[in-house]
Amino acid sequence: MWLQKEIHLKARARGFHLVSDEILRQLPELQDFNIGLLNIFMQHTSASLTINENAAPDVRADFESYFSRAIPENEPYFLHRDEGPDDMPAHLKASVLGCSLTIPISNGRLAMGIWQGIYLCEHRNHGGSRRLLLTLQGE
Amino acid sequence: MWLQKEIHLKARARGFHLVSDEILRQLPELQDFNIGLLNIFMQHTSASLTINENAAPDVRADFESYFSRAIPENEPYFLHRDEGPDDMPAHLKASVLGCSLTIPISNGRLAMGIWQGIYLCEHRNHGGSRRLLLTLQGE
Amino acid sequence: MWLQKEIHLKARARGFHLVSDEILRQLPELQDFNIGLLNIFMQHTSASLTINENAAPDVRADFESYFSRAIPENEPYFLHRDEGPDDMPAHLKASVLGCSLTIPISNGRLAMGIWQGIYLCEHRNHGGSRRLLLTLQGE
Repeated sequence: MWLQKEIHLKARARGFHLVSDEILRQLPELQDFNIGLLNIFMQHTSASLTINENAAPDVRADFESYFSRAIPENEPYFLHRDEGPDDMPAHLKASVLGCSLTIPISNGRLAMGIWQGIYLCEHRNHGGSRRLLLTLQGE
Repeated sequence: MWLQKEIHLKARARGFHLVSDEILRQLPELQDFNIGLLNIFMQHTSASLTINENAAPDVRADFESYFSRAIPENEPYFLHRDEGPDDMPAHLKASVLGCSLTIPISNGRLAMGIWQGIYLCEHRNHGGSRRLLLTLQGE
Repeated sequence: MWLQKEIHLKARARGFHLVSDEILRQLPELQDFNIGLLNIFMQHTSASLTINENAAPDVRADFESYFSRAIPENEPYFLHRDEGPDDMPAHLKASVLGCSLTIPISNGRLAMGIWQGIYLCEHRNHGGSRRLLLTLQGE
């Protein structure tokens, strides 16, 4: 059994945002899969997806602080500058964190740990709405 | 053909540990898959999984040295501090390295390169046993 | 429907290289899949795969500049030195970026965004040809 659908996440400020619920609301078909896998693929190169702590908002704030220090803007050696100072760091962060997730499905639900949630990592100052392609397979 | 099972990795010290054999010992069903994929999903937010060099133990020691310098404890800007100084760096390392792997299966075996092995990346000082959900599909 | 095949990427200089076309030329079977997933698995520990911007070559040059600064050679604490100064950084970069990709297939094509391409991240000075195992499934 295969299912593929495109969904959109609403535009968000630069930073790390918990989006598990926003994704699940757009995927009622998940309950039809007893066992399987969900692939979430972000069709952009300046935002990313990761799984991390779903409770403390401080964790997500610290993610933004850390990554924007580890991969700073305006590095003197950057050649790619024409799309603004946040653009080249956004590409680098997107590859460090990755543009897709593969999550197991059990009994019609995502089989994540109880402390895990899906983060949209928005690396642009004005990234706009983000498009995800969801591919489910299972039985 | 689908198979899903939960396994546990024994508690380990903070650092990078080769766990290919510990996983394979708990997955005798692998030999029934001629062609397929194995998804290994860690249900935690302060440890991670990666694939790297399976021979020299020095490589794994250098991984711990590098990541604990690149993502240090006690950064003055960290807000999330209540679970100890190793906690926020553990969350960051977990997302840089990732909580899951998808590995091809060929002829009943994991089709990794001869120098590749699976690392448990334990980022907490006392992380305890770690739970993995294994999802196999194939034919 | 399952398909698995090994392909090789030609040897490249250290750096980040757009290889989408080189992979697709070796995968004419892709057009037989209406919906599915492609797993690309690099069987090496000192090169990696990522998805990022497919247009501006400056982006790929900046990737090499950034990663070779963030993970430098000859760190005094490195223990693993016997394969040359580019070896241990190559292992670290390989795990930060990852050795595999899972990409959705729609209507016989990879369903990446219009600005996305597949990068071979060659971390060794003389890495040679790189071997990829492609696993497709779908219908």
